Amino acid sequence: MTPERARAAFRDGQVAPTTGWADGYAQANLVSVPKDFAYDVLLFAQRNPKPCPLLDVTEAGSWSTAVAPGADLRTDLPRYRVWAQGELVEEAGDVRSWWRDDLVTFLIGCSFTFEAALLEAGVPVRHLEQGRNVPMFRTDRRCRPAGRLHGDLVVSMRPVPAELVATAVTVTAAVPAVHGAPVQVGEPGRLGITDLSEPDFGDPVDLHDGDVPVFWACGVTPQVAIMESRPPFAITHAPGHMFVTDVRDVDLRVS
Amino acid sequence: MTPERARAAFRDGQVAPTTGWADGYAQANLVSVPKDFAYDVLLFAQRNPKPCPLLDVTEAGSWSTAVAPGADLRTDLPRYRVWAQGELVEEAGDVRSWWRDDLVTFLIGCSFTFEAALLEAGVPVRHLEQGRNVPMFRTDRRCRPAGRLHGDLVVSMRPVPAELVATAVTVTAAVPAVHGAPVQVGEPGRLGITDLSEPDFGDPVDLHDGDVPVFWACGVTPQVAIMESRPPFAITHAPGHMFVTDVRDVDLRVS
Repeated sequence: MTPERARAAFRDGQVAPTTGWADGYAQANLVSVPKDFAYDVLLFAQRNPKPCPLLDVTEAGSWSTAVAPGADLRTDLPRYRVWAQGELVEEAGDVRSWWRDDLVTFLIGCSFTFEAALLEAGVPVRHLEQGRNVPMFRTDRRCRPAGRLHGDLVVSMRPVPAELVATAVTVTAAVPAVHGAPVQVGEPGRLGITDLSEPDFGDPVDLHDGDVPVFWACGVTPQVAIMESRPPFAITHAPGHMFVTDVRDVDLRVS
Repeated sequence: MTPERARAAFRDGQVAPTTGWADGYAQANLVSVPKDFAYDVLLFAQRNPKPCPLLDVTEAGSWSTAVAPGADLRTDLPRYRVWAQGELVEEAGDVRSWWRDDLVTFLIGCSFTFEAALLEAGVPVRHLEQGRNVPMFRTDRRCRPAGRLHGDLVVSMRPVPAELVATAVTVTAAVPAVHGAPVQVGEPGRLGITDLSEPDFGDPVDLHDGDVPVFWACGVTPQVAIMESRPPFAITHAPGHMFVTDVRDVDLRVS
């Protein structure tokens, strides 16, 4: 499955979480806001690089991106969310009717990108095994605010066999552009997460005996900041329903 | 020499390039622009991360920074440049009289930061041996523009013994926050540099027999973009006369 074919399927109406799609290619979170709000989002990303590693920022009004030439950011994701004053207005598979000339789009690295590398290193990815979306949780850690934008850190959780936690850390530390190393290992309560079976976004996933919950910063973080900060208008992806880029995973690895 | 004492010396009027000062602490390029221009600078940095790795972005009007609590960005650098419409208006050791309530300050990583690590790895740093500022060159490579901001890539050059080039690459690749790995090794002509003895900024440095010129992206790049793009007002550091932060080198190392 090439990124181009994945995007074509979503453009043609298919709806699915993109975990496991177009293996070997980076996936991205999408946040589009009016130009007037773009400085705050850009500064929020600069100040919170673990949840918000930027892969691209478009020109105002443009639905093209350097990380996937030929793609249309208004149609090529499986599922979008449209927001007004921080309230969800619509979930849709196509946002052409909502598009505005002043929208600046931020594409933010997604941890789905490193799942192929985890598998390659022998680390099982439980939500893939169980055919589910990754579970995501709001934490009680505040992001560093920027202008009008403020909110809690969101994390994704993957159960990892205890003897493979170190491998999972080193594999993901090598790709800071898609959230990098975990923010925490093994203590959900210390992040304000009370019940692993009740994620705020995505699906619950079953831990095997000997699995430890590992938490990575998540690109849904700016979406939560938008819910809380209530900009007049925004479009985002639906959690887990990402933009598949033409950038190869390996090109994001450092060292 | 602590960062605090270095800054105090500059605040008290000492003027010197900061190469070799406060070993073990990160140094930063400074660019201050009116809020109206700040989005363009922030986007320019996002699109050109090698020359413009951001260490901090201040609130408008503030002369404080998270990377050196207690410092005053208007007085604590050894030398500033003040710009109007892209023209140099003044060089000064103190810019309090030029400060404006709408100035947003960008602190950008500086390659002086990795010189201690080079020395530690056995790589000689010729401009330090020769008691000079590092030589910097405008190249013929264009940066990716952002809004009203556009300009050529600027590089710093360090002669490295041929058998130590690989070491210099790996040591600096580990610190992307201060420009990371070289952009080019060994072919000044391919960057549009015709004469290594005539740098555009800083001092010429002598190559020893067996030395190869190695080029790193340089934080003077946004300064050159400001000269070319002519914003109404800007303050920058004078090349080589950096802001010494409280951030330790080692805390910027990845992997």
